[in-house]
Amino acid sequence: MKQLFDYIEANSNAALDELVRFCQQPSISAQDVGMADCAKLVATMFREYGIKAKIFKSSGCRYPFVYGEIAGESTKTLLFYNHYDVQPPEPLEEWTSPPFEPRIAEGKFWARGAADDKGDLIARLAVIDAFRKVRGKLPVTIKFLVEGEEEIVSPSIARFVSEHKDLLKADACITETGAVNWRGQPIMFLGCKGMVYCGLEASGAAQDAHAMLATSVPNPAWRLLWALSCLKDQDENVLVEGFHDDIRNPSMEELTAMMSIADSPEIAQAQDETELKELGLSSFLKGLSGAERRARDIFSPTCNIDGLESGYTGTGPKMIIPRVARARVDFRLLPNQRGKDILEKVRRHLDKNGFKDIAIVEPILLFEPAYTPLDNPFVTLVRDTAREVYKVEPGVVPWAPGSAPTHCFTELGMPVVPAGVFYFGSRPHAPNEHIRISDFIAGMKHIAAIIARFGP
Amino acid sequence: MKQLFDYIEANSNAALDELVRFCQQPSISAQDVGMADCAKLVATMFREYGIKAKIFKSSGCRYPFVYGEIAGESTKTLLFYNHYDVQPPEPLEEWTSPPFEPRIAEGKFWARGAADDKGDLIARLAVIDAFRKVRGKLPVTIKFLVEGEEEIVSPSIARFVSEHKDLLKADACITETGAVNWRGQPIMFLGCKGMVYCGLEASGAAQDAHAMLATSVPNPAWRLLWALSCLKDQDENVLVEGFHDDIRNPSMEELTAMMSIADSPEIAQAQDETELKELGLSSFLKGLSGAERRARDIFSPTCNIDGLESGYTGTGPKMIIPRVARARVDFRLLPNQRGKDILEKVRRHLDKNGFKDIAIVEPILLFEPAYTPLDNPFVTLVRDTAREVYKVEPGVVPWAPGSAPTHCFTELGMPVVPAGVFYFGSRPHAPNEHIRISDFIAGMKHIAAIIARFGP
Repeated sequence: MKQLFDYIEANSNAALDELVRFCQQPSISAQDVGMADCAKLVATMFREYGIKAKIFKSSGCRYPFVYGEIAGESTKTLLFYNHYDVQPPEPLEEWTSPPFEPRIAEGKFWARGAADDKGDLIARLAVIDAFRKVRGKLPVTIKFLVEGEEEIVSPSIARFVSEHKDLLKADACITETGAVNWRGQPIMFLGCKGMVYCGLEASGAAQDAHAMLATSVPNPAWRLLWALSCLKDQDENVLVEGFHDDIRNPSMEELTAMMSIADSPEIAQAQDETELKELGLSSFLKGLSGAERRARDIFSPTCNIDGLESGYTGTGPKMIIPRVARARVDFRLLPNQRGKDILEKVRRHLDKNGFKDIAIVEPILLFEPAYTPLDNPFVTLVRDTAREVYKVEPGVVPWAPGSAPTHCFTELGMPVVPAGVFYFGSRPHAPNEHIRISDFIAGMKHIAAIIARFGP
Repeated sequence: MKQLFDYIEANSNAALDELVRFCQQPSISAQDVGMADCAKLVATMFREYGIKAKIFKSSGCRYPFVYGEIAGESTKTLLFYNHYDVQPPEPLEEWTSPPFEPRIAEGKFWARGAADDKGDLIARLAVIDAFRKVRGKLPVTIKFLVEGEEEIVSPSIARFVSEHKDLLKADACITETGAVNWRGQPIMFLGCKGMVYCGLEASGAAQDAHAMLATSVPNPAWRLLWALSCLKDQDENVLVEGFHDDIRNPSMEELTAMMSIADSPEIAQAQDETELKELGLSSFLKGLSGAERRARDIFSPTCNIDGLESGYTGTGPKMIIPRVARARVDFRLLPNQRGKDILEKVRRHLDKNGFKDIAIVEPILLFEPAYTPLDNPFVTLVRDTAREVYKVEPGVVPWAPGSAPTHCFTELGMPVVPAGVFYFGSRPHAPNEHIRISDFIAGMKHIAAIIARFGP
């Protein structure tokens, strides 16, 4: 490994140059800026690294998938998942330097996409270069799936993966969101919660009516909020009938794993206070704090209102019975809840409570919960190599509080584990996104160690 | 009266010319278009009719009040309430002719403000002209109070009236909203419901938070809708503690009065169907119809949601915990409920139900319910003269389902009754507002008869 690590260190500036090249190309999926050019750039870079590349423009997807493959000496195959799209850079005035003009300063690399997710892809390419230069070959076959729709919630990946099962066949998958926390400990989320996101809509009269008619004209805003009230009570209990049926209790191993990221009570309290200050809150929901809050973030499902809209709330008074009321809600799901089943249960629950008039409308998004068991050998491999590279016990969390298309890969029967180059201060999605160059180098070494250990 | 009526008929074209002049002057209070010029025009016209005029620009009001006074031979005084502002004309493309270019066609006068409320003021001025030309003098002193803020919910009139009690002292008041219904029967609302309108606001984190944090970050949209749910149940019962305490039951006379506007069951059903069709509804609230629905419109208070706003409901998905949630609500009040008292009860009810975090915010508007008793002699006078002019029994309703600043005048101890020139098809607030010229002439005659009968 030493030769590989030495090569990676010696050539880290070349890798950073490649990252400049990648980050200079805007690729804002939400705004359709630079997307086709960026897909082409990924394929071009693949070919420069000896990786066979193909751009898939399937009829259903908005931005193409880029597939890459490079053969290795064993029969084993490792799949890398990345995305080439980035979040919109706005608000631009908060950037110290322009988001698509990468800059190195203070030991950090600043650009939109540096952390999420262009840094990860460049790190992986640099490791392939290292293997080819140092060893002349790769120990395992490497496949890449790079999508352009991650920042618009991956609407096409489930279908793409299911339609290309053979192409994407692999023994394990390394995904994004590998990061080190504030004290330098690499954190691995071994899965993610599922999600159901949908609109709810109540309709009233054909046009807004005068408020004085509220004695006889139905008000869809009332209908909608009464309907929402029957989904969750004031103590945060989800009331949808059957909602909790399929949730399995966390195993002792999963609960114990949480302890691997536990802070001392003093540090946990300081961390709570920092987060509360940033959020502008005096307390967390239900007064929770410390380890109890962190456990709830992982082991509780949610029922959240993302938006409400009805009638008039602008300047000055306007007295009306709105013609329509709209909400957006999302549920975060735990293993073994299923998105489609939950959506059906919500429909049945509304009907049963007298809300047949409330329509479930687009946008409807379903992500299934997905996780790789703690005792999977590939988890052990990634954990062991992380310990060796970072010189600290990695933190392992059964799954993340967020949702991602991880289930597309776990459903193909492979373990999926993150490894990457950013840290908790990287500000993905925010102005002044950046990675630390030391994390970038450590991240490359970790990927190299994973590939080496995974081989024969 | 015959001489007066003949003069009014003979000079109706001159009155319509004056109405052209008045309606040509835009006066859109919501958009601050032409307001100062229109106030000056009212004062100018007053002086042309021998009425002393004064423009009051009080520090607190947005647009001036115009006061007018012309002495009569008796000690009795009649106060006319009018307003010179009009609703915004939008949507302009739906007007057959431009809203501020009055047009006479099909026996109708078309212009923004024709019905609401410039036609009424011109009719009253024409009647004063008739008295002066035919009789040389007025039988009673006439006072005018013309405001410029009616279409922005009269925010200053209560204070203005209470600060000018002596100036406005009168024995009776004729207000606007006098109209004939579809079958030519003049309808008199002897008062109006009161109103409390306010914003409700729930605050969460300092900025929108990621929806995956819903396990620990409070969501103000949930707080707001739970709070709203405790104000009214799904059967339309207002739950605010003490809300109904001061409502007095309608008297037998008030209930009987409703029969004066009753239609035959066939006509009532046809009317329900017409209204439902226009509203695009299949049924009214609680399945009500006919006389039962009309009685509820008059004798029930309301608790209405005018608007809701929180988070994101735009194109595509956005998963957030909104930082703030806002609602607007209005309550329509019955005699003897009081706006301030109801607002305090809402605050106490929210507090008692665990919603101290829900703020009651601007815009806050209070209108007190107000009505003139059915047996007041002035009501009889207006009713009798209406019967004589319109040759049909007028319809009398204890109060209107809507709210108006009527209480400002009833609190000064005078009866307040409407008389006017529009009809149920006049489309006030909508494109192609108009009055029928026959109603304009009948309305002038009715005002003349009221003044004549009120005199010695």
